[in-house]
Amino acid sequence: MAKELKDLTKRSENYSSWYNELVVKADLAEQSDVRGCMVIKPYGYAIWEKMQRVLDDKFKETGVQNAYFPLLIPKSFLSKEAEHVEGFAKECAVVTHYRLKTNEDKTGVVVDPAAKLEEELIIRPTSETIIWNTYKNWIQSYRDLPILCNQWCNVMRWEMRTRLFLRTAEFLWQEGHTAHATREEAEERAKLMLKVYADFAEQYMAVPVVQGVKSETERFAGALDTYTIEAMMQDGKALQSGTSHFLGQNFGKAFNVQFINKDNKLEYAWATSWGVSTRLMGALIMTHSDDNGLVLPPKLAPIQVVIVPIYKNAEQLKAIDEKVEGIVARLRALGISVKYDNADNKRPGFKFADYELKGVPVRLVMGGRDLENNTVEVMRRDTLEKETRTCDGIEDYVKTLLDEIQDNIYAKAKSYRDAHIYECDNYEDFKERVKEGGFFLCHWDGTAETEAKIKEDTQATIRCVPFEFEQTPGVDMVSGKPAKCRVLIARSY
Amino acid sequence: MAKELKDLTKRSENYSSWYNELVVKADLAEQSDVRGCMVIKPYGYAIWEKMQRVLDDKFKETGVQNAYFPLLIPKSFLSKEAEHVEGFAKECAVVTHYRLKTNEDKTGVVVDPAAKLEEELIIRPTSETIIWNTYKNWIQSYRDLPILCNQWCNVMRWEMRTRLFLRTAEFLWQEGHTAHATREEAEERAKLMLKVYADFAEQYMAVPVVQGVKSETERFAGALDTYTIEAMMQDGKALQSGTSHFLGQNFGKAFNVQFINKDNKLEYAWATSWGVSTRLMGALIMTHSDDNGLVLPPKLAPIQVVIVPIYKNAEQLKAIDEKVEGIVARLRALGISVKYDNADNKRPGFKFADYELKGVPVRLVMGGRDLENNTVEVMRRDTLEKETRTCDGIEDYVKTLLDEIQDNIYAKAKSYRDAHIYECDNYEDFKERVKEGGFFLCHWDGTAETEAKIKEDTQATIRCVPFEFEQTPGVDMVSGKPAKCRVLIARSY
Repeated sequence: MAKELKDLTKRSENYSSWYNELVVKADLAEQSDVRGCMVIKPYGYAIWEKMQRVLDDKFKETGVQNAYFPLLIPKSFLSKEAEHVEGFAKECAVVTHYRLKTNEDKTGVVVDPAAKLEEELIIRPTSETIIWNTYKNWIQSYRDLPILCNQWCNVMRWEMRTRLFLRTAEFLWQEGHTAHATREEAEERAKLMLKVYADFAEQYMAVPVVQGVKSETERFAGALDTYTIEAMMQDGKALQSGTSHFLGQNFGKAFNVQFINKDNKLEYAWATSWGVSTRLMGALIMTHSDDNGLVLPPKLAPIQVVIVPIYKNAEQLKAIDEKVEGIVARLRALGISVKYDNADNKRPGFKFADYELKGVPVRLVMGGRDLENNTVEVMRRDTLEKETRTCDGIEDYVKTLLDEIQDNIYAKAKSYRDAHIYECDNYEDFKERVKEGGFFLCHWDGTAETEAKIKEDTQATIRCVPFEFEQTPGVDMVSGKPAKCRVLIARSY
Repeated sequence: MAKELKDLTKRSENYSSWYNELVVKADLAEQSDVRGCMVIKPYGYAIWEKMQRVLDDKFKETGVQNAYFPLLIPKSFLSKEAEHVEGFAKECAVVTHYRLKTNEDKTGVVVDPAAKLEEELIIRPTSETIIWNTYKNWIQSYRDLPILCNQWCNVMRWEMRTRLFLRTAEFLWQEGHTAHATREEAEERAKLMLKVYADFAEQYMAVPVVQGVKSETERFAGALDTYTIEAMMQDGKALQSGTSHFLGQNFGKAFNVQFINKDNKLEYAWATSWGVSTRLMGALIMTHSDDNGLVLPPKLAPIQVVIVPIYKNAEQLKAIDEKVEGIVARLRALGISVKYDNADNKRPGFKFADYELKGVPVRLVMGGRDLENNTVEVMRRDTLEKETRTCDGIEDYVKTLLDEIQDNIYAKAKSYRDAHIYECDNYEDFKERVKEGGFFLCHWDGTAETEAKIKEDTQATIRCVPFEFEQTPGVDMVSGKPAKCRVLIARSY
């Protein structure tokens, strides 16, 4: 067994350490020497690229186009939308100078005090302000609307406590920003994009999500409504995996984006914004993986099938190479990504453990006996089950198996999640049980006071008013007042 | 004729204004309110995305993997490689603080003086330093090599005079960074990537390029050799379109990246880096476009074919719609991107001018007569030639025509360029002729003095020692001393 795998902390011992170690050992990412900023390593980036490709196609199907807006935002822009500045202008990277010069003893460089900016620039924590400042010049008439732009980029928020993928100072994301002529159209777009995210999470990441709307406290700074998808990790905690905001006319007003509507009257444009980030990597890892390492959904796995030969000598390896060549070609012809690892500087056992750690969905092993019998050993990563199959038609079998794995890990995650969603109407009971994790469906009186008390008592927060669960009448479990709705409460990442 | 087109300055009047106007009028990009930073608009970004996709596939074919490294670089990293700091640590964006706070009268935000960074961070102007600082932990043995990473990202250089795409403070690019066990392998990689760039420029952008190696003065800061591709714009000026650097062991030594080689000895790793940027957009625009607007190579055009109906009434439009539907389907089946523009809020003449301005390679027009005759009018953007063709098999005709346009604009650009490459051995003659533009093949004594004098006298620089032209013996046209080689000299962007 490979050393890396042996060293991996078990989930039951310490879930948090398990995650932190796994991200590094599976070569997904690592901390850099720049505080809070990560290096996304090639294997991790390959997964992110697959996510990007799928999402990008889905966005474009809805009419969205990509564009690119500046990294730096003038400080004054942030102050233009009152709530937005409260949420985003605080912990951020500030550019104050534009030049360095050699220091006096010529051993390094120092900031040139003469090169001070008149107005400081902020590295974008999100781009509503710079984008709406730009849209101002693009929008005169309802005929210029809608504008449906997205950008894939880096953003920066000066987080004090960071964790790879889950919370980093710099992260990669996409941010969509749309402008519309009517309130209805903007609300529809915000909901549509939430659906795109939910479908992506469930169909590609195999992560079941609860869709819903945030409470006022938990809304995006500057939004009238924030829609969210919430996933449950294996420790029962929630991970907010994507959000879509209906921004009303807040940014239209802040940046004076007015247009002539169909009735020939001046009106402020209606806005949405929506984003998912490299945080999705965290959701992916924590939902499916196990004590042996990553478990990746086949649809997002950079390598879907690995083939490892076991051989006694060069002659036998040559015979296996030839046999495998045909299998590889047939798998690739079906659009399956395959790696044949016949490198001779690592033993099969090391390779097995390494590909398990990296979550390759299907492993094929061919030894001398297999060669004689025209068979191959097939192992599926999700259940670790092995079986020996004939090589005839193995490509079709593997293709079906990949689909089955995709379905199975989704079903497993969904069954785990559903078993950990509780209806709860007793606050004492809630306080005790929420420590163990899980999603709690509770009646809420709709006040920020109750919400704050729950958070203070338990660290749990209202994740959303879920769309899919029945809204039954009842009383708030904290205040005893009549409830406005049932909400989903959980501790979260 | 659309207003936008009528207003476009002619190339012969003012080439520079023509370019600046065209970029904006064709909806490719615009200046933002952040000094030197551009907004890349959807139509411009769609071309960049096509470039990215092709290049990314080509990189991966050579074994390169994508990854992502931090945006911010500690100031001290930049000083570690002596030449590099001279070239890159000067004009750059410096982050000095990490928090804003509400000002006293609550009208805005100010930098929080308490949140000053211990060490300033620089927005990457290029990433050799942060990447080699990371590679240090990845490389122990020759078995860890080569490392072949690329990242697509934004970089920032505080340019004082900016022009859309050609020179902007922030720009998008890819930067490849490879580490090797031997000098030979690194040199080979640097040359290989130059070939990838040259092939891309010629086969996709339809831009002929001269490949060569830079003089010492013009090298990348920290490189032992910089390879370059140089394209000629329609004003005869050179545009450096991509560079690939052999960095020797400079960064290996600066960041102490040592490995055990095959002879079991400690050795510093060998490096290359290579990049192309959104500057390629400038090269694309300036090589092919004309006084009517953009001319795009079909392989990179977001819309390859536009179809415009001309109709008298709704009934006729309906009949044309139906007819065109079939043509669109057949074109798409051949992988051609088509837009059918039957919007009724713009007149055909406006549409014609607009799609010419945007460089759509092929335009089909169908009117009432065409409908009766089962014909369609075909116009190719490169020559503006029109002809009427039968609709039967029009998809195959258009497919062939797109290939022909791709070949034609390359041939046209190459013939223009070749007609403007001159051998020149007389300095007085050179000084006079270089004002008119063109590439000059001149004998050079290899000294920085001569190089500096040429630049001072004429603003022209040595673009490269070209690979493809014969090296004949001769004397330096400036110093009269024996020449080391023939170099390519030109004014440049």
